[in-house]
Amino acid sequence: MRAQSQGQHPDLGVALEHLLSSGGKRVRPAVALLTGGMLGANHERLITLAAAIELLHTATLVHDDLIDGALLRRGIATLNAQWSPAATVLTGDFIFARAARLAAETDSVTVMRLFAETLATIVNGELTQLFSSRGLASREDYFKRIHAKTASMFELATGAAAMLSPVDEYLAQEVRSFGYEIGMAFQIVDDVLDFTGEQTRVGKPVASDLRQGLFTLPALYYMESHPGNEVIAALLEGGRFSDDGLEELVVQIRKSGAIQKSIDEARRFVERGLTILESMPESPEREALEDLARYIIHRDL
Amino acid sequence: MRAQSQGQHPDLGVALEHLLSSGGKRVRPAVALLTGGMLGANHERLITLAAAIELLHTATLVHDDLIDGALLRRGIATLNAQWSPAATVLTGDFIFARAARLAAETDSVTVMRLFAETLATIVNGELTQLFSSRGLASREDYFKRIHAKTASMFELATGAAAMLSPVDEYLAQEVRSFGYEIGMAFQIVDDVLDFTGEQTRVGKPVASDLRQGLFTLPALYYMESHPGNEVIAALLEGGRFSDDGLEELVVQIRKSGAIQKSIDEARRFVERGLTILESMPESPEREALEDLARYIIHRDL
Repeated sequence: MRAQSQGQHPDLGVALEHLLSSGGKRVRPAVALLTGGMLGANHERLITLAAAIELLHTATLVHDDLIDGALLRRGIATLNAQWSPAATVLTGDFIFARAARLAAETDSVTVMRLFAETLATIVNGELTQLFSSRGLASREDYFKRIHAKTASMFELATGAAAMLSPVDEYLAQEVRSFGYEIGMAFQIVDDVLDFTGEQTRVGKPVASDLRQGLFTLPALYYMESHPGNEVIAALLEGGRFSDDGLEELVVQIRKSGAIQKSIDEARRFVERGLTILESMPESPEREALEDLARYIIHRDL
Repeated sequence: MRAQSQGQHPDLGVALEHLLSSGGKRVRPAVALLTGGMLGANHERLITLAAAIELLHTATLVHDDLIDGALLRRGIATLNAQWSPAATVLTGDFIFARAARLAAETDSVTVMRLFAETLATIVNGELTQLFSSRGLASREDYFKRIHAKTASMFELATGAAAMLSPVDEYLAQEVRSFGYEIGMAFQIVDDVLDFTGEQTRVGKPVASDLRQGLFTLPALYYMESHPGNEVIAALLEGGRFSDDGLEELVVQIRKSGAIQKSIDEARRFVERGLTILESMPESPEREALEDLARYIIHRDL
């Protein structure tokens, strides 16, 4: 990934180093590597794919943080916190270009197609959210949104790994579904952590989504069991509410059963994923994927 | 191209329709179609390629106009003039994704690679310009810049068309060079028109680049023959100069020999392009490419 800025303007190297040094869990490339390992993918092409996926993810984060005006990610300054919007847009574009080049280096046209489709899905999801940030407060909309935002990239990780492997269409589709299930669980847990986490650790206020009028699963479950809540009505309709009212709502959601219901929902996704894995070739990689899937619902909860 | 927003958020269709309805010369896809026609490319894949190239170009314009704060392009409102920066960034990303999907639909991994390389070249060029908008005032830097900005896309148009055609490596390289030559000429003429055009027609002030401290070929030739000009020195060093001084400089450049010298330079690029074409298979498409190459230096001059 770091080699992708070679021969380019030096500041691109600085940006890429900054973005990559923040680490992150690298869960998407890990899923791709383990899936490909389990299915017997060509090793070199698989590593190229994993780097392409992480760079695609990184590029979308660069533009997202710019759009949201986020100043911190993973505890370190975002690019837009330090650079002009122009430089940030272009750096994101550059990383897209490098992700596309790496994807092309897998030498698989089907991988390339899935790659391009996934980027379109992610961006279309963000635009849909942008054009209707209020009023989309049903679980159906939520699941669509997190599919576009997160699960699509996990489907790419597993689906593209299968495309580089000597497996039949059925197995390829199954392993893609596995990516879907753990991707959905991953985002639900992220959304639970947005409520249960501490402000300092994640670098943003608790319930940051709700503050922007965005209803994630814990808020949706709470809303369903408390239909008359006035702050929720105001958030949905763009009406007025007090800061105290919002803080109180967050406290109520945190101690309500909505958190556990959300975790249970994530757990069901993971369980479906684990069931799919049972039909996969037994291997150390399969075991690692099982561990990873279970870890998703246990991290920090 | 218009079909690319199907099944997506309706506002994306609106945006794409708006961007595509403005027309533009469509010179890049025309070059791709004629080159592929001349070399015997598969017709269907060639059309897909041409659409991919125009969309890639469109996506870069969407982000460029946002970055430059441009309000008009081709006489109609830019996307960023009507939409938020967030929506504009994402729409550009979406069009990138669709361009990449179309490129993948050519079923050629080498086309995909060239595509990704070209995007990286364009973006790296823009970043280089952004990080050093003043002080880069040599013809060498200028030629590098217009290669990245414009000629690289013409190389993509001809080079990728060759990749879809039954031709040997030598001919493919030659036709790519043809793209380079006419692409360089095309941008030089654009830069001449920036000085000689009228404000109302192009929708931006005369010498808009120079006003931003960016030296294009006419300004560079003028500078070389007028080394002591104070406004030029101020532009180069970020110093102070009066509006009247700048207007006077523009008038001086317009009536100086720098304009003709720039046109002559463009003509030399075109002539090299025409020489390359002589070794290509005779065909109606070759004749059309010759006409197109000659048209480049005659349009509006």
